Amino acid sequence: MTNQIFESEHQINYYECDANQQLTISMLVNIMMQVSGEQSYVLGVGDEELAKEGLAWIVLQYAVDIKQIPKAHQTIKITTQASSYNKLFCYREFKVYDEAGTLCVTAKSTFALLDSEKRKMVRIHDEIVEPFQAPFSKKLIRTPKPEKIKEDEVVENEYRVRYLDIDSNLHVNNSKYLDWAIDTLDYDFLTTHTLTHLNIKFEKEVYYGNQIKSQMSLFQNEAGQLVSAHRIKTGDVINSEASMTWEKKEELNR
Amino acid sequence: MTNQIFESEHQINYYECDANQQLTISMLVNIMMQVSGEQSYVLGVGDEELAKEGLAWIVLQYAVDIKQIPKAHQTIKITTQASSYNKLFCYREFKVYDEAGTLCVTAKSTFALLDSEKRKMVRIHDEIVEPFQAPFSKKLIRTPKPEKIKEDEVVENEYRVRYLDIDSNLHVNNSKYLDWAIDTLDYDFLTTHTLTHLNIKFEKEVYYGNQIKSQMSLFQNEAGQLVSAHRIKTGDVINSEASMTWEKKEELNR
Repeated sequence: MTNQIFESEHQINYYECDANQQLTISMLVNIMMQVSGEQSYVLGVGDEELAKEGLAWIVLQYAVDIKQIPKAHQTIKITTQASSYNKLFCYREFKVYDEAGTLCVTAKSTFALLDSEKRKMVRIHDEIVEPFQAPFSKKLIRTPKPEKIKEDEVVENEYRVRYLDIDSNLHVNNSKYLDWAIDTLDYDFLTTHTLTHLNIKFEKEVYYGNQIKSQMSLFQNEAGQLVSAHRIKTGDVINSEASMTWEKKEELNR
Repeated sequence: MTNQIFESEHQINYYECDANQQLTISMLVNIMMQVSGEQSYVLGVGDEELAKEGLAWIVLQYAVDIKQIPKAHQTIKITTQASSYNKLFCYREFKVYDEAGTLCVTAKSTFALLDSEKRKMVRIHDEIVEPFQAPFSKKLIRTPKPEKIKEDEVVENEYRVRYLDIDSNLHVNNSKYLDWAIDTLDYDFLTTHTLTHLNIKFEKEVYYGNQIKSQMSLFQNEAGQLVSAHRIKTGDVINSEASMTWEKKEELNR
């Protein structure tokens, strides 16, 4: 049994890019999720099939390494595969290549099955994952946690959840957390730095009409890397934690 | 001389859709702008060529008629052509077809050339529009104006412009005005109504860090149509006016 590798191409449109014409991190994640959805569909276990059983995939965590962020008008190739699964989690990997075949992005993600009605995680059904031909393994994979926010240096913005933040799972789409996180960093920082690593964990869903706080602290970690640590909260509830590693653009161009 | 018609296909990704899996109006507009950009590129007068001369296309107005809004996973065909131009304006039309070849959307738009440095409109250069083979016509085309807001029934939200609202023209991307406008309507309204017509006029640019007001009033117009009239303001300056015509979903499904 070998894991089914699925491959898809995507032309990067200008509206998926920022002011620098670089693909935004939220759109990069959207594109990866789109491609894993396409694989499920092709294998006969797409979102519509799952919805008939009152189920939906939700993403719990992803860790993304960015060697080179794709730019507007490039055509990228995305590959994905389910790497393994256990009772509760399904692990999935992504790779993104540019037109020359250079590996630009690698990502590891953890998915779970949601009972759409009860809003609760359910046991992974064998018949849903069987077509991906990923091995069952009892072992939980320990994904590194995002780096922690420094409580005494927190920058904070508030947002009211908009209608357009909601996806067909009737909660805030995971990519929108990234928009809120990125927005705590200012224009000067974002135009002079490049994101090289993202680790985000989704703890609790956010719904339409919620008022959320996007908190951030920026610091140098023990390895000497420039890190922004993020937290999304509704009241006292933590909905998501994330950390991003940044490099100055000059350093990258050396 | 016949106007060059350009054609492009687009697969609608889930992240371009709302909670109902319908293409959002802002993404519909983004896709049309992407295709007109592609035509310019193919004809050798793309955004990068214009940027070398310190110029950029900006959109001043568009009127969009929606017979049927495309849904997630559909592949649509978009056609566009420059219909005519005069000293200051270039007029462009779009049509969107579904997989069966049914016409879903028609749109008319007015573009102008911006001096990126001075932030001022400049005379249309013949050599830039020549490849589109659209006729020069002195006559200004009178596009109907958006319906006016009712001053005594205004709903209002405030927004701070985010980094990700800015495009490569270094101002808020035109599609973001639509997100602000739509967000003044609530969840119940948006899930039970369908947009059939949009008319939006862009008056003044909005920049990073600006605080904007998105105002709206909802009423029945003289023709008995349900209309939301919109206005985007920074302080006392009107940046944009728009109106949208809506139909109840049941009426459409009859």
